Formats: sequence, C-alpha cells, structure tokens
Amino acid sequence: MSDDPLRNRFDSIRAGAKASVPEDLDRELLASEPRDLASIDRWHDEADVVIVGYGGAGVCAALEAARAGADVLALERAGGGGGTTAMSTAHIYMGGGTRVQKAVGLEDTADDMYRFIMASADDPDEARVRRFCDESVDHFNWLVEQGVPFKDSIYAERTPEQPNDDCLLWSGNEKAHPFREIANPAARGHKVQADAEGGPVLFRVLSQRAEEAGVRVQCDTRVWNLIVRASDGRVCGVVTRQDGSDRFVRARRGVILCAGGFALNTAMVRNHLPRLLANNSDPIGNPYDDGAGIRMGMSARGSSIRMDEYFITVMWYPPASLTKGILVDENGQRFVNEDCYHGRCAEYAMRNRRTILIADDAIFGYPVSGLELIATEASIADLEAALEIPTHMLQNTVAVYNENAAKGLDPLFHKHADWLKPLDEGPFAAIECSFGVAPYLYFTLGGLKTRLTGEVLTEDGHEVTGLYAAGRTACGIPRSSWGYCSGTSVADATFFGRITGRAAAGNEVWE
Amino acid sequence: MSDDPLRNRFDSIRAGAKASVPEDLDRELLASEPRDLASIDRWHDEADVVIVGYGGAGVCAALEAARAGADVLALERAGGGGGTTAMSTAHIYMGGGTRVQKAVGLEDTADDMYRFIMASADDPDEARVRRFCDESVDHFNWLVEQGVPFKDSIYAERTPEQPNDDCLLWSGNEKAHPFREIANPAARGHKVQADAEGGPVLFRVLSQRAEEAGVRVQCDTRVWNLIVRASDGRVCGVVTRQDGSDRFVRARRGVILCAGGFALNTAMVRNHLPRLLANNSDPIGNPYDDGAGIRMGMSARGSSIRMDEYFITVMWYPPASLTKGILVDENGQRFVNEDCYHGRCAEYAMRNRRTILIADDAIFGYPVSGLELIATEASIADLEAALEIPTHMLQNTVAVYNENAAKGLDPLFHKHADWLKPLDEGPFAAIECSFGVAPYLYFTLGGLKTRLTGEVLTEDGHEVTGLYAAGRTACGIPRSSWGYCSGTSVADATFFGRITGRAAAGNEVWE
Repeated sequence: MSDDPLRNRFDSIRAGAKASVPEDLDRELLASEPRDLASIDRWHDEADVVIVGYGGAGVCAALEAARAGADVLALERAGGGGGTTAMSTAHIYMGGGTRVQKAVGLEDTADDMYRFIMASADDPDEARVRRFCDESVDHFNWLVEQGVPFKDSIYAERTPEQPNDDCLLWSGNEKAHPFREIANPAARGHKVQADAEGGPVLFRVLSQRAEEAGVRVQCDTRVWNLIVRASDGRVCGVVTRQDGSDRFVRARRGVILCAGGFALNTAMVRNHLPRLLANNSDPIGNPYDDGAGIRMGMSARGSSIRMDEYFITVMWYPPASLTKGILVDENGQRFVNEDCYHGRCAEYAMRNRRTILIADDAIFGYPVSGLELIATEASIADLEAALEIPTHMLQNTVAVYNENAAKGLDPLFHKHADWLKPLDEGPFAAIECSFGVAPYLYFTLGGLKTRLTGEVLTEDGHEVTGLYAAGRTACGIPRSSWGYCSGTSVADATFFGRITGRAAAGNEVWE
Repeated sequence: MSDDPLRNRFDSIRAGAKASVPEDLDRELLASEPRDLASIDRWHDEADVVIVGYGGAGVCAALEAARAGADVLALERAGGGGGTTAMSTAHIYMGGGTRVQKAVGLEDTADDMYRFIMASADDPDEARVRRFCDESVDHFNWLVEQGVPFKDSIYAERTPEQPNDDCLLWSGNEKAHPFREIANPAARGHKVQADAEGGPVLFRVLSQRAEEAGVRVQCDTRVWNLIVRASDGRVCGVVTRQDGSDRFVRARRGVILCAGGFALNTAMVRNHLPRLLANNSDPIGNPYDDGAGIRMGMSARGSSIRMDEYFITVMWYPPASLTKGILVDENGQRFVNEDCYHGRCAEYAMRNRRTILIADDAIFGYPVSGLELIATEASIADLEAALEIPTHMLQNTVAVYNENAAKGLDPLFHKHADWLKPLDEGPFAAIECSFGVAPYLYFTLGGLKTRLTGEVLTEDGHEVTGLYAAGRTACGIPRSSWGYCSGTSVADATFFGRITGRAAAGNEVWE
C-alpha cells in the first residue's frame, strides 16, 4: 500500500483485473443453446419478471418492475448481488442541471448533454440519447429519493478518479476539442458519496429498496439457458440448476438479461476484439462478466451489435501537470490533444506502434499509476537519440509545439490554452505509454440490440417477445472507445434498467 | 468511356456500387426467424445438400458435394448464378509455387505464404490459414482441371487491377514493410484469363462442371428462412416461396449458406460498422449482399464474428510513380509507407481527419481513378499554406523525407528504396484522398463463425448440426482491413467452398 489513495485505487483495479481472468471459456455453460418449451414438464418456480444478474442494471430493473406491480425474481450467480457496479467507483454520468451541478455553480442543460453524447459515437441511438439526457435530472432525483448519497461538491483537478468523497468530476472529454465547440462543457460524473469506491454504497441502498418492494433475490444461482417456445420464439423462462438437476423457472411476462459484458471471456474477446489481447492489457470487471447474458440473448435470436466497441485506458495522469507534456508515437509525431480524457488518449495511442509521453522538468511528476520513466536527457535532441526516434522528428515536433504554445495556440490538435506551455526547461523526460508495454485496462461495450425500453431485437429489427436486456449485456449509450466518459456505463445501466423493468412488468402474460 | 481500360474499370466498379445500394433493409425478409420443424406438414422438394446462394463459394460447394455422391440442390435468388464473384476481376490469391509462379520465375513456398497471411490479421485462424496455404497449389491445379484459364504471365506494374489478361499481380502488401521482413515476397494474385473481369469466365466454367456433376440449380428462388428442429437445434431444411405460398425444402444432410456478405445492407452496416457510412463511401457487391445468409445463420444460433472487419480502398494509384509521393494527414504528418497495398493505405487514411497525397513534378500524373488535384504550388511552403496545414509541419515532413530519401532510407515508415526519391522538383501537387471526400469503396469480411470444414458454430463454440457456411457469409481467411490483399476473398470462397461441400455431403441424414 502506498500513502497515495489514488495510487492504491489504481493498483487495486489492476490487481482485480489480473486475478479475475478465467482460464478459458466454460464449455459447460452452453448459454447459446435454448431449451425448447415443449421439453419442460413442470415449473419449479415462477414470477412475472425474471431478472438474470443482480448488479446495477438488475437491481434497478427489479425495483421498478416490482413497484409497477410485478412479482419479481432476481437470480444472481455470485454469492451476493452487486456485480461490476458494486466494484466500481460509481461515477454516474448525469447532467442538465442536477442539484449538485447547481450547488457548485455549474451551468448545464439537457441539450448540451445531448449534443455532447451525440458527438461521442459513430452512430449513436438518437432517441435513446435524447431520453437519457431529457430525464437525467429526474434520474438523479430518483437516486436521491432512494437514499443514494451525493455530496454537493466538485473535485476540480484533472484525474480519472477523485481520491475523496467529492461528487462531481470532469469525467470525460467535455472541455477538450472538438467537444468544447460542440456543446457547452459541464462536469457530469457524479460519484456516489464514499471515501473509496461508491459502488458498494449505491448497491446497498438500491437493493434495500428492492427488498422492501418485495423483490425476491436468489443468489448462488446460475442461469444456464433460456426456455423458448419454438412456434414463435417467445422467451418463456429460464433454466437454473440445483444439486445437479435442472430447475425450470417460468417468466410469465418477461426475462431481463442484466448479466454484464464479456470482457472476462477471452474466447469472446478473441471472436470480436482480438486486438485487445496484448501483453499488459487486462480486462476490468467481475469474474462473471463472461458474456453469458449476451450469449443467452443470441440463443433466442437476439442480435449483438458493436461487439468491437470497448472502453480502454492507460492512466498516464495524474499528476495533471503531465497534461502539459506531449504524447508522441514511434516517429516522434503527436497524434491527440493531450487534454482529452485518458480513455480517448488510450484509444489513439493503441493505434501506434509505440507511445511516449514527453515532459520537461517544470511539469514533470511521476505518474501516480506507476507508468515507467524510460529516459531523461538534457536536451530534446539527446532524448530523441536515446529513444531511437528518427533524427529531427522529435526535435521538429517540439519546436513547432513550443513556438505555438508560447502564443497559447495548438494549431495541430487544439489542446486548450490552459495546458499549453513550451517544453523548454530541461532536463527532459520520457514516460512509457505504449500499448503492449504499459498497463492498459479495458471492458466491453457491445451487446444485445434493444429498443430503448429494453426489448431485445433480432438482426432484422424484430422483437424477441418476452426478452429484455439492460446494462452491459445490451448495447446502450456508451458505444465508442474514443468518446467514452467515466460514469456513462453505470448511468446507462441504472437509467435503462429502470425503464426496462417497467416495460417487462407491463408485458403480456403468455399462454 | 475513357480510352484507359483501367479508368473504365474503376468507373464501372463505382457506378455499380452506387446503383445497387438498397433503399432500406427488407423488413419482410425475416431471415432472423427460423421455422419450427414441427410446423412443416409436407416437403415440396428435398436434397442431401441444399446450397443457399450460387456464387463462387456456392458453385464450388455444390460441385464437390455432388462429386462426393450427394444429391445437391442450389437455390439462387437472382435470375442467374455468379453472385459477386462473377462481377469481380477474379483475382484468386494462391501461392507456394503454382504453375504460373514458376513460369514467370517467381519463387514461393507454402511457408512464406503462411507467414505472410498470419501477419495480416489480429487473430488469424491458424489451422485454417495452414490448410489454405498447404493446399494452395492443389487448388490452383484443381481450377485448371475444371477448365479455368490462367495465362503464364505477370503484370509487374504496381496497380490495383491489371488492364489486360495477364495472370499474376502483386496484389497485396508482400513487398512492403513489415511484411517483406516476415516472409519472402511473392506475387500471388492470379487473375483468371480475360481481357476485362475474369469473374464471368470463372463462374461459367465452374457452373458447367457442376451441371455435369448433376447439381440441380434453381434460380429466381429466394430462401426466406431455415427450418430448425426445436428439440436439438438441428437445421433440417429451408423455406422458399412460389406464387405467394411457402415451399419447404428438406435438406437431408445439410444446408450450406453461401449468400455473400452484408455490405449492401445499410441497416446491418449501421449495426456493426457505422463508421463506413460517410459521404462518397460506397459498398461494392451485388444487390443481394444483404447479409441474409448471416442472418439465417444467426437464427439457428450461429455466431457472427469480426462483424467490424472490412476491405476498403481509395485508388490513389496508378500511375505507380505516385507511390514516390507522400501521404500526409491534416497536420502534414505521414502515417504509412506509401508502397503498401491501396487497401492498407485507405484503412490508415480513414483514421485521419484529412488525407492528401503530395507529389513533385517529376513523379506527378493524374490518378487514373479520377482523384482530384486540389492544389499546385511552386514550393512546399506555399503548398503548406494553400492546404492550410499548420506552419512548418509539411515543410518539416518533406525536409526529413528528402534528407533520408536521398540516402535511399525511410526510417519512419520503411518504404522500399525503389520508391524513394527526394520531392524536390517543383511545382508541387496535392491530391485529395480524404475519407468522406474522395471515393472510397468497401465490402464486409465479418460473418458466421465456422470450423474450417464449414460447420457453423455457436458463440459457445458448439456445432449447429446440419448448418454450414462458406464465402463471405462466413468469417474466413481475410479478416482485417489493414492486411487485406486482392484475391483472398475469391480464393477463400472457392477453396473453403469445396471443403465445405464435401463435409456437408458426408454429414449424417436426419430422422
């Protein structure tokens, strides 16, 4: 343990990632094979709505379904609920003028939030983004009503995670080009109040409300398959197992898949995202983020989309002063405005053969995450030679950068003037940020294609009746590595989990 | 029509692409919904092996299945067979010492071909690549035995397409860094002998052999759905339609999906590859490359993988002399060795906000494809200003390039010395190559996950009994935009089409 709470947090995220990678795909799971309804001779249990996976999306879906009058049964594979949400910091991306935003004097509107998120993916789901933004303040208020604590404060430093219980964080690319020209910037990452991770607090509060609402929760219960009616493809229930024998659970109105993403399933990552599999590149998530929910959805003809999308990061700051440095590739060329969110920088960096952060003495500090200092030299020319960058290349890059930075300009990548300073105070340092060398962490964003109300769709765009998905089992708001912001995944899971729970509760009973 | 056959060829490819984009996904298709075997009360026709789609993969599968003793019925949606293969140049990527390679004095081995292809994707299917290379000479000989003509000649110029009936073409990245250090380079693109496209010749010959072998071919017959047995998921047949009523075709041993990729289905591209949808970016293929085969495979629980992979090109050469120019981004920075295959250049170019080709007077020629000359200036400094590239950036790039090129070196990107010459003979020209501005053409490479013998697999890796796929309906040898070579798609379709036909013919009869 270090004295620095942020360093400890980074170390713990990485240690968790390393520890939880499963050896191989569980070939026994067979989530891709549905059970034929005709083969089911009895029901061991039943409910209006059956929830598969009791994390952030699952608990919100369960709670809202129960409040809508449904009998809800939540099935969780682990010994307790929470999933990856409960392991997380619990940044929740919300805006448009929340209580906390107002308290700290930040102006924000639903339209600015909408324009910003729309600019953050190749083909965002416009209606979904619209609703997510229009009802974001309501979602904040709802969380508060449930008892989720948020402090009326902002942690203004540039960092991937705040080291204390402050609420707001600039958790994305809001202030960076080109986003700052597209939408008025606002901090929207709301951390649930907690000294360390907010996830346990968030889940504890929501699960208490769900229990009060009558949700039945059954842990240590793995869902193995969906039960499907062959004549029309309707999803009618799920198969679990107890003491080695199958148990059939009828879902009168619907099954909601909220079983997380597939980052921890190496076989699935190999199928859809092989370029993430590199030395020192590790998934983050809980061990059950093995894509079982997505595979069950596929077994009922659900389409999985954007399976190549992910979040990735290399935490090259704090100290924030390093943002005044430049990130260069193997040829000493810059490739990104360094004031972007760490994840956006990482996405661009992983396209390079090599990525190095160049800093001068005035801005240098050891990266809190432990990234390695690989060279220090008295001059940029010497650093160029030490790094074996082709002659003149780094020198030219720094000369152009310095000339413009002295004028408060970055005509190449438009880094904000706040972060511009000539790199002219030797000695000069090089920090290793290369993909395949420095530690990178990722999780997956692709998942089942759904209506915004959670109904799973086939590749042809038709509903799979009786089947819903939310959280990272679905493809939701966050759908690009270059546009990801901290807090969008938990926000998406909780927001659309709620909507999906209500939709499933209102679905027709089969038979 | 121009006098230049290559220009005409490029124009015709583009015109075809523009004309064939469907308005929207055919919502009536419902390929994603299987028919329950229990609902089938009679069979209108039956065969051992039913082939869905009679293009390059389909005809090879049909022929080999028939020769293995199977009764084969091929169903083709268009008025005649051929598919995209028959529209293509028909480069077939083969090597290891074919008759043509030997005749023109090229040395090649299966191992070099293997090393080269293995280096061309993030996670190639090693066993599949091994077999493809080990049996490549056999495949060439088999094609010759069927009567497919190949001239014993090579077209040695650097071009995406030869303008005559010469056979061999350097159709990929073989001679470019880093590939030339990984495997001994050899030209492997074998064009079927024809003055224009070789595709019609290839298909005519193979379909004649298939008819002689007893293959029944039924055109104007669209397959709407697969018929699946609910108890175990076995694929038992297909549904077609005639005079508005369904017709059920039993497949005693297996159904082979060879219905092409999904480039022409905008909805599917939006689901999986939205970044391809840009101004002046058009799919190539035939109008039925709408992913129906992939969707039918998904309906039977087949997994589709690498759905984000594609081939893309912007044809910025010939004239080959332009290869001595430099491709730069919006900041005047180089990003690729310009002696790469056009598709690899295009993949890197589309990651830029802007891409411009810089040439001097000595190497200048108007691009045959019609790319636009956007500026000519007496000096690089003036060109930099005219293009609004940040001051010094293009000048620095050219200065470093010229200093090294004079020594026959390219320490940045390792362009081969054959293409290195200082750009110092003004006036200087800029040619527009930007994605979203210049014409780009693409097709898709993702598809059903299969064993190399064609059995379709679920996401869990289990066989969907009775279902096979080949050609671009499957994810095969070519699986990266940055490593694609002309001829790998037709080679993959014909090679694995043959293997798949034999496998399906040997499958057990159901019931």
